[in-house]
Amino acid sequence: MRIDAVDLFYFAMPEITSEADGSQDALLVRVAAGGHVGWGECEAAPLPSIAAFVCPMSHGVCKPVGASVLAQRLEGPDDIARIANRVGYDSMDLLQAAHTFSGVEMALWDVLGKQRGEPVWSLLGYDTNHAKIPYASLLFGDTPQQTLDRGRKARADGFKAAKFGWGPIGRGTADQDGDHFVAAREAIGPDGHLMVDVGQIFGEDVDIAAARLPALDASGALWFEEPFQAHAFEAYAALAQRPSAVQIAGGEGAHNVAMARHLMSYGKVGFIQIDCGRIGGIGPAKMIADLASASGITYVNHTFTSHLALSASLQPFAGLADHRICEYPAQPKQLAVDLTRNHLERNPVGEIRAPDAPGLGIDVDLPSLAGYLVDAEIKVNGQVIYRTPKLT
Amino acid sequence: MRIDAVDLFYFAMPEITSEADGSQDALLVRVAAGGHVGWGECEAAPLPSIAAFVCPMSHGVCKPVGASVLAQRLEGPDDIARIANRVGYDSMDLLQAAHTFSGVEMALWDVLGKQRGEPVWSLLGYDTNHAKIPYASLLFGDTPQQTLDRGRKARADGFKAAKFGWGPIGRGTADQDGDHFVAAREAIGPDGHLMVDVGQIFGEDVDIAAARLPALDASGALWFEEPFQAHAFEAYAALAQRPSAVQIAGGEGAHNVAMARHLMSYGKVGFIQIDCGRIGGIGPAKMIADLASASGITYVNHTFTSHLALSASLQPFAGLADHRICEYPAQPKQLAVDLTRNHLERNPVGEIRAPDAPGLGIDVDLPSLAGYLVDAEIKVNGQVIYRTPKLT
Repeated sequence: MRIDAVDLFYFAMPEITSEADGSQDALLVRVAAGGHVGWGECEAAPLPSIAAFVCPMSHGVCKPVGASVLAQRLEGPDDIARIANRVGYDSMDLLQAAHTFSGVEMALWDVLGKQRGEPVWSLLGYDTNHAKIPYASLLFGDTPQQTLDRGRKARADGFKAAKFGWGPIGRGTADQDGDHFVAAREAIGPDGHLMVDVGQIFGEDVDIAAARLPALDASGALWFEEPFQAHAFEAYAALAQRPSAVQIAGGEGAHNVAMARHLMSYGKVGFIQIDCGRIGGIGPAKMIADLASASGITYVNHTFTSHLALSASLQPFAGLADHRICEYPAQPKQLAVDLTRNHLERNPVGEIRAPDAPGLGIDVDLPSLAGYLVDAEIKVNGQVIYRTPKLT
Repeated sequence: MRIDAVDLFYFAMPEITSEADGSQDALLVRVAAGGHVGWGECEAAPLPSIAAFVCPMSHGVCKPVGASVLAQRLEGPDDIARIANRVGYDSMDLLQAAHTFSGVEMALWDVLGKQRGEPVWSLLGYDTNHAKIPYASLLFGDTPQQTLDRGRKARADGFKAAKFGWGPIGRGTADQDGDHFVAAREAIGPDGHLMVDVGQIFGEDVDIAAARLPALDASGALWFEEPFQAHAFEAYAALAQRPSAVQIAGGEGAHNVAMARHLMSYGKVGFIQIDCGRIGGIGPAKMIADLASASGITYVNHTFTSHLALSASLQPFAGLADHRICEYPAQPKQLAVDLTRNHLERNPVGEIRAPDAPGLGIDVDLPSLAGYLVDAEIKVNGQVIYRTPKLT
């Protein structure tokens, strides 16, 4: 088959706040090929990502993503890799291209799986689809009490693992942060997995980050996530050397395979967290899962949006039995819930699995999303090069 | 003073070809503050970069670049660094932000220099503005004869140094590439500096790249530029280990300080090449110049567009006497020539210097650029969030 059409849909909540909550808007990608339709989602700023798909060419290696995708042959996984290489080379000077292509690439796997009647994890070469322990991904409250309340709600919802992130952590003293860690542990219980995410708050300052290690140890945190900027491999490695039982985690900012590889090889993280909506899609994420598995590093998905993104993010490590924990957006905005008709519900023992259905196994009901649709238009020299497609 | 306005102008040649020639379009940035006007230029895809400045916020750390710049205080270099940090953190999930901000940051230095009546290199802390040997930056011809002709023209134009790049190199055999290197050396003469740029053609394949080393050695090339993808530090380091007198060069793809630093520390390049229009502007480039200088690595600008970009790119290493070579766009498209009223002409011994005038010392004559102006408009929910400004 050939790639007949790629449509980009920009959705948003009625109000966007400055919370670090990536589920407040969405860039949904629809790919049509050979009579089938596939879906993907970019974890990215919608408008610049759309512009990167449709913009005029600047020069030979600064082409729009669309130029490398539309009308291409799509017969098997090799074609997806070939298209990805094309985007990588022909758009090497278009920084946003990786984020744009991430959603497109997911949709290519979805189309291919539907055409073959095969789940994506199987197309990736896995013969078993292992269940994962979902952790509730939550934001820290403004106060330890709020943190406690959010964590208790997650526990009451049946989660045995929770990650708390962002909020006030790193903006006050290490002791104040410690109070939140204590509250988080109390909420999730002594037997739960507890993880902490600080969203790059320490820049490259190893000492200030390390000042949080004793409280993290005391609360029995499994990992300490994104203490530093996404490229600060030296700082990651230095923190990993400090005496502590807590492992360092990171990787959601990786927008190509090399960046994630370097966070493992140079940055010495114990957990590598990949967002398929940023790294270039499912194929690059699978490469990192393979590398992590071979290096004794645990692969974890990064997912804070819809269950379409969640299904995509489970595929690259669905076949890795020992990589047990997965991120699960526990309190997403309603947009992320409504984006898909079906959801990856937890089974009686509280675990989830990637769908066994063809492709990504997730249904999108476009007409039901009318209330979230952002009407956007881009014109160049009088010609409309992008207009929000109809919801049909 | 406060930053009163930022205007983005998208210009393009009437025809854009798939040549690797970045001077075919331009994104010019004008900043107004305290009654002064400053200019900068992004080396980036114009439309996605514009979108990254004006787009709606997605969440707390996926804000448009404009939100971190407009109405900010601008009293000294510390304010520019503060604004840069704001962009880095508040736009951490907006990949294109670094390219967008690069042109804005240049313009901030230009404004500040004009307000103080001081050149940017002086604001950066240098007390001397050293002359540089400009190398003609040329594309390889389709045939060795064309390469010879282009090189001879540069030599006749008085250049004692030339860099040939892209074209057919790496697409045929090592012997075919060698014929081009011989032609290039013949053109520039036995006493000229010869450099070779292959534009990431070898991906991460060290052996295929290394197969070019004997011919590069035979032609007395000073450096072998961008053999690999911008993030392929392991491949860079492996090639640097191979027996050859040729040093490896790279860095133009760096879109933050850490990436360029890693190409030096992990990638072991001998020359680090920074494009101020991509790395985040002049401030980050100066950090890399300092690091290179302290590490025995030679700093070189990457500039393939206008003399506004050239002036900006000279500032970060203007005070480094031992870093002698600079890239000089020798055959830019007419747009890049017309973009500025004055140009950095070579002195009687064929060298150039950053202007001693306030700011970047480059005049832009907007009304004269009418023929190149691209008329663009971005609308979101019925509201125009970007429209090409008037040329006044």
